[in-house]
Amino acid sequence: MVSSLPTIRFLQQPTSSAWVEQALANLNTILLDHSHCERKAAGVALNLMFRYPSSAKLVRMLTAIAQEELEHFEQVNQILERRNIPLASLAPPPYGASLNKQIRREEPDRMLDSLLVSGLIEARSHERLGLLATHCEDQELAKFYRALMASEARHYGVYWTLADTYFERSLITQRLEELGAIESQILSTLYPQPRIHS
Amino acid sequence: MVSSLPTIRFLQQPTSSAWVEQALANLNTILLDHSHCERKAAGVALNLMFRYPSSAKLVRMLTAIAQEELEHFEQVNQILERRNIPLASLAPPPYGASLNKQIRREEPDRMLDSLLVSGLIEARSHERLGLLATHCEDQELAKFYRALMASEARHYGVYWTLADTYFERSLITQRLEELGAIESQILSTLYPQPRIHS
Ligand SMILES: [Fe+2]
Ligand SMILES: [Fe+2]
Ligand SMILES: [Fe+2]
Ligand SMILES: [Fe+2]
Repeated sequence: MVSSLPTIRFLQQPTSSAWVEQALANLNTILLDHSHCERKAAGVALNLMFRYPSSAKLVRMLTAIAQEELEHFEQVNQILERRNIPLASLAPPPYGASLNKQIRREEPDRMLDSLLVSGLIEARSHERLGLLATHCEDQELAKFYRALMASEARHYGVYWTLADTYFERSLITQRLEELGAIESQILSTLYPQPRIHS
Repeated sequence: MVSSLPTIRFLQQPTSSAWVEQALANLNTILLDHSHCERKAAGVALNLMFRYPSSAKLVRMLTAIAQEELEHFEQVNQILERRNIPLASLAPPPYGASLNKQIRREEPDRMLDSLLVSGLIEARSHERLGLLATHCEDQELAKFYRALMASEARHYGVYWTLADTYFERSLITQRLEELGAIESQILSTLYPQPRIHS
């Protein structure tokens, strides 16, 4: 249960069964949205590397994350292709934008908040891919979700480690408490469109 | 000589010996700038994927490029670390911004210009890494540059292939002629700071 500690730290409320039902009833849309999530996750890691180019540990760890997210992106896209689901843009749920609004503009707050928001998103992805792995009847998909789940757990571990590298522990836990409450609050009403973060 | 055809198509003027001298006399700065170039190359590929999420071939080919650029980024950073050159930001030369200004704002021109500008930058990187591979006395570096050179040649091949997928051949060659003239013009005066694209 090594990976369960950070989950508890990050996520304040578990995902509702309503989300699981919505997702299972709309797996094609969930797969397409998932593809966008992986590309965005790579983009976020890369953007942080652009913003903090001299922070060697951050650059090293986020290079690895960006590479893995691109691999996931490729894998989801291959599944889309096998299922004849064409790549297409998809309006995102409010989740990402609402969380990004919480990032304070001044450094070093901006760096701390960016790392914690990314950690929260990774932790939630980890939780939800785990739910899909457990409840999805399609064995190919279930296996795929199980494989990704482990990566996403490592990813929020990385964002936690980076926060812990550059900031005081007490500052991190206090801010994570605040952001975690908001993250759970955003998801407390199910978004009508099926999405990974609806 | 498979890879020489696209070079000729892309680059109108060869790099001056003045650039080679400047680069060899400032290898540490060139290495640091090179690290930034690789990260930017990954960013450009990812941005194009964000902009054209439903163009399956573009998404597939640029995912591979972004992954390779991140690998190059990692490799340059390892060399920087071995040489005790700290990661640091570095003011870019005007090259990238000047080329980006040439990208027309309306689609589909924007897509064509973006692909051709990326192809030009890859072609120039290929040429210059080749010059470094030939002239650099440090055998470890020369080997490294030789390895990257081949990738960059494939990369401008990819940008060419993508342009060729989405646009008429005559339109591409005419626009490449214009952009190629500007690209060579920008580099016709050596930028005083040593950079991959000075
Ligand atoms: Fe991922
Ligand atoms: Fe992730
Ligand atoms: Fe590269
Ligand atoms: Fe490249």
